[in-house]
Amino acid sequence: MTNLQWQDVVVDKAARRRVNCHGSAVVWLTGLSGAGKSTVAVTLERLLHARGVRTYLLDGDNMRHGLSSDLGFTPRDRIENIRRVAEVARLMVDAGLITIAALISPFRNERRLARALFDQGEFIEVFIDTPLAVAEQRDPKGLYAKARLGQIKDFTGIDSPYEAPEQADIAIDTTVSSALQAATLITEYMLTAGILPPDGSSEPSLSGLTESPPP
Amino acid sequence: MTNLQWQDVVVDKAARRRVNCHGSAVVWLTGLSGAGKSTVAVTLERLLHARGVRTYLLDGDNMRHGLSSDLGFTPRDRIENIRRVAEVARLMVDAGLITIAALISPFRNERRLARALFDQGEFIEVFIDTPLAVAEQRDPKGLYAKARLGQIKDFTGIDSPYEAPEQADIAIDTTVSSALQAATLITEYMLTAGILPPDGSSEPSLSGLTESPPP
Repeated sequence: MTNLQWQDVVVDKAARRRVNCHGSAVVWLTGLSGAGKSTVAVTLERLLHARGVRTYLLDGDNMRHGLSSDLGFTPRDRIENIRRVAEVARLMVDAGLITIAALISPFRNERRLARALFDQGEFIEVFIDTPLAVAEQRDPKGLYAKARLGQIKDFTGIDSPYEAPEQADIAIDTTVSSALQAATLITEYMLTAGILPPDGSSEPSLSGLTESPPP
Repeated sequence: MTNLQWQDVVVDKAARRRVNCHGSAVVWLTGLSGAGKSTVAVTLERLLHARGVRTYLLDGDNMRHGLSSDLGFTPRDRIENIRRVAEVARLMVDAGLITIAALISPFRNERRLARALFDQGEFIEVFIDTPLAVAEQRDPKGLYAKARLGQIKDFTGIDSPYEAPEQADIAIDTTVSSALQAATLITEYMLTAGILPPDGSSEPSLSGLTESPPP
């Protein structure tokens, strides 16, 4: 390995994708609290990992406890949180990873700004479409109950709007699709888009390092 | 690949390291403007890439133009910038990457706070040690000249202090070491620490996916 012409190598997004043998993109999961974003995200990450795909999951937990720990839940802070998630996702995509972002991200304008950070085809907007009544009935964290009691303000779907995507790249109706079906659909989308290599060809290799420039 | 027991896989830092066949850590390069941090960083990234190691470089350019674009250069904003770099580096290390951070990061306390975000051995502080006179003579961006004229304020080394590391993990005297020698030294440090596998064993594989639990 040490005899490679390493001096001439430019380590950029293209080089990192070659070493990984797959493309990179952000899968942006948007939907109500309780819609099932995290379940789909975790299932998708497991499916991809099993294919040897390099992934990272950005969610409220690892952002709010770290990079966004200085932010609250005012509209301004929520917008700043989404901006930071999008900027980190951009770095992760530059690093060659399939990055999964799972955030309510209720406003079209913020999602549009997030998309604008990425090259064409790198931002995959996935609408995790669950009716409010269903999400509220699930209420896995008891947040809807608190919002109905007025103990949480500006709660998306209750006293703050959720602006459903008008042209999501993928829309998943969780009342008819399981998390595995959703994750499979997203994987197939990336296969069709050429972000992931076809089945059976995704073994990592170092071929990119020795490949010749096009004639 | 689709028959693997993907449901049972927890995709965490350990799993990502197994797929990559190397550990992850942040190499934090600190030193004066003009000390040679970026040159060492780029050389190190190329050396590691040629070994098949997954890397990412965080520097002023890709941070200040994106995640930290809302920040200026006041002491408070500089501290916030370093905090964000450290938090992103933590996510990148969690993602399984050897992350190279090249920042002046002049204050011991900030570097200490950055280190505190990482597990033992994951934060490698590298002092790019160049005398002020040498850095000022190089002045690759013409910044020292401007600082001497008072056109830039709070410039590290001129009218703002640089607190040299007292116990850096690696110290590199750039008046006697080339960038390649520096990058080689850092690589050897990571080999000795077990962060990188020995030469010849770093071919990527998917062995981690099928490995049995310890008996």
